[in-house]
Amino acid sequence: MPHYTAPLRDMRFVLFDLLDGEAELAALPRHAGLDRETIEAVLEEGAKFASQVIQPLNAVGDREGCTWHGDGVVTAPPGFKAAYRQFVEAGWPSLGCEPDFGGQGLPTVVNNRLYEMWNSANQAWLMYAGLSHSAYECLMAFGSDEQKQVYLTKIISGEWTGTMCLTEPHCGTDLGLLKTKAEPNGDGSFALTGTKIFISAGEHDLADNILHLVLARLPDAPAGTKGISLFLVPKFLPDAAGAPGERNGIQAGSIEHKMGIHGNATCVMNLDGATGWLVGEPHKGLQAMFVMMNSARLGVGMQSLGQGEVAYQNAAAYAKDRLQGRAATGPAQPGKPADSILVHPDVRRMLLTARAYNEGGRALATWTAQLIDREHAHPDAAVREDASELMALLTPVVKAFLTDNGWETATLCQQVLGGHGYIAEWGMDQFVRDARINMIYEGTNGIQALDLLGRKVLMDGGARFGRFAALVQATLAELAPRSELAEFTGPLGKLLADTVALTREIGARAKADPNEVGAASVPYLRIIGHLCFAWLWARMAALSAGKDDAFHQAKLATARFYFAWLLPEVEQRFREARAGAPALMAMPADSF
Amino acid sequence: MPHYTAPLRDMRFVLFDLLDGEAELAALPRHAGLDRETIEAVLEEGAKFASQVIQPLNAVGDREGCTWHGDGVVTAPPGFKAAYRQFVEAGWPSLGCEPDFGGQGLPTVVNNRLYEMWNSANQAWLMYAGLSHSAYECLMAFGSDEQKQVYLTKIISGEWTGTMCLTEPHCGTDLGLLKTKAEPNGDGSFALTGTKIFISAGEHDLADNILHLVLARLPDAPAGTKGISLFLVPKFLPDAAGAPGERNGIQAGSIEHKMGIHGNATCVMNLDGATGWLVGEPHKGLQAMFVMMNSARLGVGMQSLGQGEVAYQNAAAYAKDRLQGRAATGPAQPGKPADSILVHPDVRRMLLTARAYNEGGRALATWTAQLIDREHAHPDAAVREDASELMALLTPVVKAFLTDNGWETATLCQQVLGGHGYIAEWGMDQFVRDARINMIYEGTNGIQALDLLGRKVLMDGGARFGRFAALVQATLAELAPRSELAEFTGPLGKLLADTVALTREIGARAKADPNEVGAASVPYLRIIGHLCFAWLWARMAALSAGKDDAFHQAKLATARFYFAWLLPEVEQRFREARAGAPALMAMPADSF
Repeated sequence: MPHYTAPLRDMRFVLFDLLDGEAELAALPRHAGLDRETIEAVLEEGAKFASQVIQPLNAVGDREGCTWHGDGVVTAPPGFKAAYRQFVEAGWPSLGCEPDFGGQGLPTVVNNRLYEMWNSANQAWLMYAGLSHSAYECLMAFGSDEQKQVYLTKIISGEWTGTMCLTEPHCGTDLGLLKTKAEPNGDGSFALTGTKIFISAGEHDLADNILHLVLARLPDAPAGTKGISLFLVPKFLPDAAGAPGERNGIQAGSIEHKMGIHGNATCVMNLDGATGWLVGEPHKGLQAMFVMMNSARLGVGMQSLGQGEVAYQNAAAYAKDRLQGRAATGPAQPGKPADSILVHPDVRRMLLTARAYNEGGRALATWTAQLIDREHAHPDAAVREDASELMALLTPVVKAFLTDNGWETATLCQQVLGGHGYIAEWGMDQFVRDARINMIYEGTNGIQALDLLGRKVLMDGGARFGRFAALVQATLAELAPRSELAEFTGPLGKLLADTVALTREIGARAKADPNEVGAASVPYLRIIGHLCFAWLWARMAALSAGKDDAFHQAKLATARFYFAWLLPEVEQRFREARAGAPALMAMPADSF
Repeated sequence: MPHYTAPLRDMRFVLFDLLDGEAELAALPRHAGLDRETIEAVLEEGAKFASQVIQPLNAVGDREGCTWHGDGVVTAPPGFKAAYRQFVEAGWPSLGCEPDFGGQGLPTVVNNRLYEMWNSANQAWLMYAGLSHSAYECLMAFGSDEQKQVYLTKIISGEWTGTMCLTEPHCGTDLGLLKTKAEPNGDGSFALTGTKIFISAGEHDLADNILHLVLARLPDAPAGTKGISLFLVPKFLPDAAGAPGERNGIQAGSIEHKMGIHGNATCVMNLDGATGWLVGEPHKGLQAMFVMMNSARLGVGMQSLGQGEVAYQNAAAYAKDRLQGRAATGPAQPGKPADSILVHPDVRRMLLTARAYNEGGRALATWTAQLIDREHAHPDAAVREDASELMALLTPVVKAFLTDNGWETATLCQQVLGGHGYIAEWGMDQFVRDARINMIYEGTNGIQALDLLGRKVLMDGGARFGRFAALVQATLAELAPRSELAEFTGPLGKLLADTVALTREIGARAKADPNEVGAASVPYLRIIGHLCFAWLWARMAALSAGKDDAFHQAKLATARFYFAWLLPEVEQRFREARAGAPALMAMPADSF
């Protein structure tokens, strides 16, 4: 059975040493009273909840899955409901939420690290709470005062959970095609009819009520994405006291049988004249949905970071225990029948890849969480705008780069165990299967790449990219006097310059052939991801060089591995991005 | 539900146009009478068996799995036994076997293409027959005349199936640690006692008897791999008439719950004084086992090629049907609500990656199958030796390069379907889960890489590699006059020169630090794999350039894609191979 211990030491390093977390929070009036000790105590409690409560349910959830009982009734795997009750009683759902509606007002940067831990422990379980948090973001931004009082408070307390109902059988990526209809009831409410699929946490027995956020079309809606509105559709209509009352006409028609995340109920939701209320303005549903979606995308990055970390921990433990073969340089454990497989360079390559991706991912995720806090709470409008622009740029990178890396990490860690990695007993295959969905949902990674290159980089003429490039430049300037860091700053400086040049090239080529954007997008996202990682790893190396304790020496060794073994991926990606559209578009459709 | 149609057109192209299959067979006296029409007829029949008999059982096998009933009784999924009976009645098991013992004597090159098809249709089912074929190879090479009469004939006919019993709970890769004991019974037989794990097709209800080939230690065995002997241990001891008689003391203790290949029973086999007979010489079991293993490794390459092909076919069909979004260059299907997703460059990237890997893999596999036929049947000893040396070099490449590619291919094809790729209904996730084992069993891909670089390349001072390099040189010389092929021959020539240089560098570095071999081995194998593919794709492009029919135009487009998008992977791999051991070995073991 797999184990998990939250990497608190590394979280402290990233949050306080690398990212100056105390000063960062001190600059935000809303969080200025929050000290390091409190944050560490919260993280320690969260770590206990991860290891003691939900991690032991991870394999059970995978094995037993959810059960659809007919008549729209779905139950989560054994133990899930009790764990959720503990979660609510401990106040975890409200932690990162607004005090005005019952939240505890902790910054995103803390919540984000908790989500990493809980995802390591049990992604399928956490999704019930995670989707609620996305619904919280959306209602917080677009809900009416009444909606906030009736629904948001219940979401914040965790009494009720939330969902996002977007996808329909014939449309996922292209929401402009969606057909679900919302007809006015004449009393301010609407009657929604249609079918939604792939609805995570769509139905379950964990909470008293489920608040569905549903995209649908009003009768006068224009065609395409400009005619989509967002509705709030509770499973039970609240009575006058706000308690769950009459059953609404939205029901789970079935649950999907999936490759992984078996513990989360992925439902087909049938809406049969279900009562709903408009959230935000008519026909502006996509805008409201994107608030929820951007939050969910960052959450998906945390899911894969979590899977990568737990996969690493278990693979490393196995590699230290498993005796097989001898070191090429002679027996390392001569008193034993064989050496541990950690003596083999290729086993180390797999484990170091996992470490470099996990620790790089943690640094990137923590920094972007700080940007969200700045965006929400910094007194200076220019700082808020800067953070907002950087987040727009980096959201698709966090989603796609971290989930691609998480997949590679989980697969490599499974490989470390050989045949034992393939059987359920060791739990490694669940990490791989669970991590797989993260590259697909909340916008496939291909869509993230198009969003990054097409919308976020080219549409503003590279202004957002320039903001990020300036940060990298500042680091290069800061570290330039330290010649011992040239092994890191040299490749970082070259990558930045090459990326600036590539961005210009693609921009120019895209004017001649719009397909050049789609063609270059996936390699471009990999390059930007590595630019983020190289920047953060150079800074982590700078903090660690010259310190001779085990933690900093390991950090430095991982940084060196990253620059020697992983960063060279960009060589291939530059070649691909420059290869461009012709090699992709030449084949006639009939020949596929 | 997924579909599968054997790619007979491409098989004909590879076998007859690219690899001159008729002339090749005409040079082998044993096969000289075999004409193209017969081969095509056999492949067509095999294709029908794939699509009509075993493909419809693939999802059933995954869903239902095998059942362990206690007392060592295991049944395969519904339909598997009946399909196996059809397989035996049609004479398929004997197809590629020696006529002296009841085989039909067809060349490996034909069998190999059949295995590709049948793996596309149902890998888990085919493993029952595939392991028998490996047992056939081993008994053919090392069995006594009596063993051949009693056992080999039954394996050839398919009445009995075979297994390889190597792995034990504490050892897989390092077989020198194995503990299973064989004590002489005094009558020429031995009593075997021990536990074997991960035994594919170890117990089932498909055949009347199962012939286990078991590695064990004789009482006087030296320690390590030099003390391992190979034994033949039937499930039922043959009676005087050769029919299954008394039940032998080898039993399935349980079956594993695995990530995939659920239709194949992966057993823990307990030997409790089981009666066995020595195969080959005492203490030379590893040598005999390697005959079986090399055959199995090539078979594993076919498993992933098969998974990659069927994954591609289903992803391509989906991409043509699914309407979502519009082409960046304007609507391609203006009469429809959206364009098919094939208009998106990144969807094409995923599908073209699959095609380039599948078609390149088919060419490599078919050529290596020809080498096996040459090795077995060519009248000229020098030709046989050349083929044997090339096979020694390429076996780990076929195993590891094709299975890594198959994993990437299946994953990308799953991605093409978005959310639909993650649910069982569409079958794509089974291809991914089934393909995953191929990177692990019969020697992990890390072990294949060590075998390639350490044993096959460096141990003979590059002589085998030189044989292969000479073939590439010959192609370069042959194509040099055709300047229109420079886009292919240029990169191929550069890659060959770079690989020669890299091989020398690693050889030199390995003398100073033996860990350099382990460090460089995985990137080195990827480079050699691409050298094989680039060589074959250049030749396929040369055959297709200037022909304006759809097949050859698609081949040329895929070749261009391969050179522009996939071959650049070597840039990263050269960097990794040159990064060497220090970045891998620096981290202290305790820091992992």
